[in-house]
Amino acid sequence: MSVNRQYRLAARPVGMAKHSDFSFTEEAVRQPIDGEVLVQVLYLSLDPAMRGWMNEGKSYIPPVQIGEVMRAGGVGKVTASRHPAFAIGDIAYGTLGIQEYATLKGEALTKLDAGKVSLPTYLGALGMPGMTAYFGLLDIGKPQAGETVVVSGAAGAVGTVVGQIAKIKGCRVVGIAGGAAKCEYLVRELGFDAAIDYKSEDVKKALKQHCPKGVNVYFDNVGGEILDIVLTQLTRHARIVICGAISQYNSTSGVKGPANYMSLLVNRASMTGMVVFDYADRYPQAMQAMAGWIAAGQLKTREDIVHGIETFPDTLLKLFRGENTGKLVLKVADS
Amino acid sequence: MSVNRQYRLAARPVGMAKHSDFSFTEEAVRQPIDGEVLVQVLYLSLDPAMRGWMNEGKSYIPPVQIGEVMRAGGVGKVTASRHPAFAIGDIAYGTLGIQEYATLKGEALTKLDAGKVSLPTYLGALGMPGMTAYFGLLDIGKPQAGETVVVSGAAGAVGTVVGQIAKIKGCRVVGIAGGAAKCEYLVRELGFDAAIDYKSEDVKKALKQHCPKGVNVYFDNVGGEILDIVLTQLTRHARIVICGAISQYNSTSGVKGPANYMSLLVNRASMTGMVVFDYADRYPQAMQAMAGWIAAGQLKTREDIVHGIETFPDTLLKLFRGENTGKLVLKVADS
Repeated sequence: MSVNRQYRLAARPVGMAKHSDFSFTEEAVRQPIDGEVLVQVLYLSLDPAMRGWMNEGKSYIPPVQIGEVMRAGGVGKVTASRHPAFAIGDIAYGTLGIQEYATLKGEALTKLDAGKVSLPTYLGALGMPGMTAYFGLLDIGKPQAGETVVVSGAAGAVGTVVGQIAKIKGCRVVGIAGGAAKCEYLVRELGFDAAIDYKSEDVKKALKQHCPKGVNVYFDNVGGEILDIVLTQLTRHARIVICGAISQYNSTSGVKGPANYMSLLVNRASMTGMVVFDYADRYPQAMQAMAGWIAAGQLKTREDIVHGIETFPDTLLKLFRGENTGKLVLKVADS
Repeated sequence: MSVNRQYRLAARPVGMAKHSDFSFTEEAVRQPIDGEVLVQVLYLSLDPAMRGWMNEGKSYIPPVQIGEVMRAGGVGKVTASRHPAFAIGDIAYGTLGIQEYATLKGEALTKLDAGKVSLPTYLGALGMPGMTAYFGLLDIGKPQAGETVVVSGAAGAVGTVVGQIAKIKGCRVVGIAGGAAKCEYLVRELGFDAAIDYKSEDVKKALKQHCPKGVNVYFDNVGGEILDIVLTQLTRHARIVICGAISQYNSTSGVKGPANYMSLLVNRASMTGMVVFDYADRYPQAMQAMAGWIAAGQLKTREDIVHGIETFPDTLLKLFRGENTGKLVLKVADS
């Protein structure tokens, strides 16, 4: 009988999550009962949103309970199936959790076309981050050709896709990211018109320089000081998409609200929140569009892959330290 | 030759505006040249927005310059005219300024039907506050029958109209205002379903009680702590109309941003700013609707009229002290 190693939530973090907030446990792999599928976990998605799932209280999704396997999306290989839709060897996506094996109802899994793109891409551009970028930008941001789109967390899983879709739609695209290497990647590799290194540049001055006509669409992944600065550079009828606020997730002194929000009034602008799950019935349409752009070379994908489930607590922190470029993925086993 | 007494901006206020921020000056009434009209000022509109106009810097309207007559909308009587559209005795609305006489181009004035409603109502329900309420609520808030609408600054010129229009549209209406007398007025006289006295009640607890299904539309006139509390009570897809932030206009420690803005994400909600001037080409349509509701007894109007131009600096402060109920009007001369 195989052993299943798992990271469970041991305590609700205060500030940054730390080792002792998780317990690394072992149990026997549970064989599927009727209607279930056993999946060997190959790749797990590490996302800023996970920090929010560790907190108590009402949100868009219930919190992970103390003692539960830490929630995570992932891609795995079917090793046993008692569900008619899945056969051994199939590749599937689901909320597998931070563990080596997941035993789930077949309905909780989506079969993937393993030959089309590399598997980690199903956690990035063709996964939740890609869907978030697609619907957040196009449905909420509604960019028009010729407009200026600014995205923060620009070198991350969502930001890289937001910027590239905005370019495909004919916009001027400016990314905000931390560090010269990320900024160079955005401009040289992904074709952003400009990138601002918030760690070394005066963001307001740089925005004025790179967005001479102002910011029509701001896709916000970070909140905090950067949101406040972008608010000062809006055009009339600008749209702000609130996708995340990674700068605030580990705050122990409360969230910093955007003091410049009255710019929404001055500019008749809007700030709208989005949660990707609302668009589930349109994922197939988005994935088709994205796969087409990838095939045509218009959308480049990049994953930052870290090996070994045992690295999970440290690897997760790469997100909050801004150490990843592209989609952060934990590789659990070879496919 | 008549004398024109005027309040001019003498200094940019720090915090609350004070006497020394204005100078009370006298000059000869200027007779109209070709195309101009001389108006004797009867009633002046005092609005929270005036505080913003005294600040330097870019906004939706240029600041009043030091030495300029303080900007204000008003109603007056034509006493001399060299414009074909105006005759002596006509009643007109325009940006007359805090003074006893205004000499303006005819194009800057709108002739009013003096017999229809009392003149101060043209500064309230049928003036900018009424237009702000109408377009802000209906175009931005988009309330549906059966939804819950919350309005802050509920006993003010805009708030009283917002709440009554929301009732006409079949909504549950909850007002937030300061003091028992205002709250009683909202419920007893204007037919609000409930009113919350922020000075004596726990606003969050009261919102939960009076909005058991959550807040679908929040019309914000005050900002600050109350905006932050209402953010915790939104329904999914709620709409927040940012009309003003009177609690913050006199702040000397910077604006308090809404720390709970991530509720926009959790609830897929939006926060949108509005400036009434954008709707100028639709004022006639709105005024017709409002006049119809007034005539039918569905929309009650109330003005808080203070006599004497010399009282201007003190009377203005009534707004920021929350001392007015309904539209604050300065009466300058008898009609």
